[in-house]
Amino acid sequence: MARRQLKLGAFMRPVSLHTGAWRYPGAWPDANFNFAAMKRFVTTLERGKFDAFFMADHLAVLNMPIEALKRSQTVTSFEPFTLLSALSVVTERIGLVATASTTFDAPYHIARRFASLDHISGGRAGWNIVTTSNPDAALNFGLDEHVEHGERYRRAREFYDVVTGLWDSFADDAFLHDVESGLFFDPDRMRRIDHKGEFLSVRGPLNIARPVQGWPVIVQAGASEPGRQLAAETAEVVFAASSTIENGRSFYADVKGRMDRLGRPRDGLKILPGAMVFVGDTVEDAKARRARVDALVHADSAIAALSISLGVDASAFDPDGPLPPIPETNQSKSSRERVIELAERENLTVRQLAQRLGGYAGLAFVGTAETIADEMEEWLETEASDGFNLVFPYVPEGLDLFVDRVVPELQRRGIFRTEYEGTTLRDSLGLPRPSNRHFA
Amino acid sequence: MARRQLKLGAFMRPVSLHTGAWRYPGAWPDANFNFAAMKRFVTTLERGKFDAFFMADHLAVLNMPIEALKRSQTVTSFEPFTLLSALSVVTERIGLVATASTTFDAPYHIARRFASLDHISGGRAGWNIVTTSNPDAALNFGLDEHVEHGERYRRAREFYDVVTGLWDSFADDAFLHDVESGLFFDPDRMRRIDHKGEFLSVRGPLNIARPVQGWPVIVQAGASEPGRQLAAETAEVVFAASSTIENGRSFYADVKGRMDRLGRPRDGLKILPGAMVFVGDTVEDAKARRARVDALVHADSAIAALSISLGVDASAFDPDGPLPPIPETNQSKSSRERVIELAERENLTVRQLAQRLGGYAGLAFVGTAETIADEMEEWLETEASDGFNLVFPYVPEGLDLFVDRVVPELQRRGIFRTEYEGTTLRDSLGLPRPSNRHFA
Ligand SMILES: Cc1cc2nc3c(=O)[nH]c(=O)nc-3n(C[C@H](O)[C@H](O)[C@H](O)COP(=O)(O)O)c2cc1C
Ligand SMILES: Cc1cc2nc3c(=O)[nH]c(=O)nc-3n(C[C@H](O)[C@H](O)[C@H](O)COP(=O)(O)O)c2cc1C
Repeated sequence: MARRQLKLGAFMRPVSLHTGAWRYPGAWPDANFNFAAMKRFVTTLERGKFDAFFMADHLAVLNMPIEALKRSQTVTSFEPFTLLSALSVVTERIGLVATASTTFDAPYHIARRFASLDHISGGRAGWNIVTTSNPDAALNFGLDEHVEHGERYRRAREFYDVVTGLWDSFADDAFLHDVESGLFFDPDRMRRIDHKGEFLSVRGPLNIARPVQGWPVIVQAGASEPGRQLAAETAEVVFAASSTIENGRSFYADVKGRMDRLGRPRDGLKILPGAMVFVGDTVEDAKARRARVDALVHADSAIAALSISLGVDASAFDPDGPLPPIPETNQSKSSRERVIELAERENLTVRQLAQRLGGYAGLAFVGTAETIADEMEEWLETEASDGFNLVFPYVPEGLDLFVDRVVPELQRRGIFRTEYEGTTLRDSLGLPRPSNRHFA
Repeated sequence: MARRQLKLGAFMRPVSLHTGAWRYPGAWPDANFNFAAMKRFVTTLERGKFDAFFMADHLAVLNMPIEALKRSQTVTSFEPFTLLSALSVVTERIGLVATASTTFDAPYHIARRFASLDHISGGRAGWNIVTTSNPDAALNFGLDEHVEHGERYRRAREFYDVVTGLWDSFADDAFLHDVESGLFFDPDRMRRIDHKGEFLSVRGPLNIARPVQGWPVIVQAGASEPGRQLAAETAEVVFAASSTIENGRSFYADVKGRMDRLGRPRDGLKILPGAMVFVGDTVEDAKARRARVDALVHADSAIAALSISLGVDASAFDPDGPLPPIPETNQSKSSRERVIELAERENLTVRQLAQRLGGYAGLAFVGTAETIADEMEEWLETEASDGFNLVFPYVPEGLDLFVDRVVPELQRRGIFRTEYEGTTLRDSLGLPRPSNRHFA
């Protein structure tokens, strides 16, 4: 019997999510606005048969303390629709997932842009639905304060209904192009949506033909209760933030359990935790690479991150000593415990701990092609995930090492494709093409 | 002395603006959603050294009677940002102008998308500012009725200030990428805009580096009093709708006169009337081509267009007879007179007149490469325009004929470039790069 296959995405802020990465030897610090660099990355990912390239997105400069912000390459980059449309021209099979907010945009625009990207790319578009947690975004969109969390998710649910409804405006066969009779399209194969809901009022029809994939693939990354419920109801891919395999299994069971209760087949949603990969010649070499990129996180950013995580000012701690005892505070209890536990497990000094948190503190696979493949296989086989949304610690080298070494090892084990299954992102992910609600 | 040079844009709804065009022998009726066709068009335009490719845009299915709509290829097409970003990858020098509405979008989004397109294309983006006249658009964006004309233009003016302000968020040299010190950008070279106006409230800064061109090129097409004023104050290119050379001269004098009064140099704005070109082996051949494409406009669309233009029901008129006497009505007096005058001048039957109006009723150059170059030269030299925004009657042939025959003739006369002047759209148009309001 064929083995279950990993699905692999690459989640990119162009230079890396790790804030020390742009200083790593050989890294490309200007990749944020260097289209040639982006082209190099995405073609490498396609050589590695990745399912999709995901472009993160934010609607404000990130709300970090300025001392950390000025040292962070995450401050700005390309806008996703423009970038992914351009990248679609230099690739043939890889999926292109754009992040777009339901809180600060209009569904008519979002529906059109994704439909257009899907047509341009021959069916490779996906929509990472976010509700935008950065409160500074509200100030850029005419509000004085941020929209409340529950309201954001109610709007997101309604927004999804409107956007998918707009994608169904035309039947797949509405455009006849009948030169003889002069009929360009069949008006009986076009529908308005006439939506009036709590937040949105949209008449339709959308002024664009139905997407190649019917609907672009729906992706979601919220972790809260309403975030998980939105995912169970609507998502076809979930980016999880599970930091250990145990967390991974319980998140997986939770979301797939919600699907069971909704009567949705489990196969219709792929859970992909974000994971940073450090590939080395040996496990020690991989760990040394990680230590080296962590060490490039500036002390100001590192201490700011540690202070936020602990809820206390960490600037007076001895950087080369162990973490001193930390009093409990009201805020972020779970975050405090996670940090204390991390310091103990890896035996980190205050400086190393701060640099880890200021760099990239999420799930990481650190080792050789074999040990990383072992870990990924265990996640897949124990239902902790359906694959991963990978993050590279420094580019291009961190990416190349993964594609050149880990991918062949996964393929050898029969848990990753050697060729794309078809032409669309739905084909790669094994997802059905949604039928049109109005037309058979 | 070097002669004044024509500036040439191509204004495209992909299949053509002429509603008979998709039925013309050899036309590509599916070009609206065929990226390969778009690539073929834009690379041909670049071979012809065109200044820019302009993508029209609408935020609703066009509000025509359904009998006309179903026969019209203008019903749907790609969304401009996604399309132009993709086309930037297959071209090197041609400008890429996207239409975007100030009435139904947020300035933060518009500023980001144009900045991103400008980075991706190496400085070739332009923004066609429209206020959206189709009232159906309002229904797709949460409103029950359209925003009033004067209010749309006041908002457009404020919107322009906000967008250009956001483009100036970072100094051109803000991004240091200083690996040694760890400083990614200089926070003293970043500014908020803190705008609070009649319609918009936007804090900033924009989360994207300053565009390659400083600001993408500003384009405008409104013809009303507030439209002309907005153009004189802000535009660097104006699409005019002048239907005769006399109209052209008076529009030109009006807008450039407004610039004089504002203290803006006349050179800073190029006036490009829209014009359809029918190129033939002889003048008779060109006229026959025009008659042939007009004859492909379906009777239902043609009669609907004629009725709207005259303000009376034209369906009972003898199609093969001359236009009967038309009573004056309250609505669209000038439109009625223009139509009566056209029927007399070209001696058209009711059917031919209706097909002209249902196809493309604006300015057209119909002739050989020589006669068309003569006419263009006259427009240029008598200050009726600074060039043209060309519309092709059927594609690809109508486009190829222009590039292969008329462009060389214009070049031979020394009134059109033989090589691009530089790398950006500003270089082609001879426009200065705007300085940053905050930073020297
Ligand atoms: C892997 C991953 C990627 C994310 N990417 C984005 C992003 O690009 N833009 C964004 O605004 N939020 C992003 N988020 C944030 C989520 O959309 C969500 O706001 C966050 O996980 C908090 O969840 P909650 O809103 O359900 O509490 C991402 C989250 C994860 C785990
Ligand atoms: C050549 C040309 C191209 C235009 N393209 C668009 C367009 O793509 N989208 C749009 O909404 N309006 C478009 N318009 C309409 C103008 O923006 C404007 O609404 C119209 O000319 C009426 O002018 P007024 O609003 O000043 O009365 C175009 C007009 C002209 C002359």
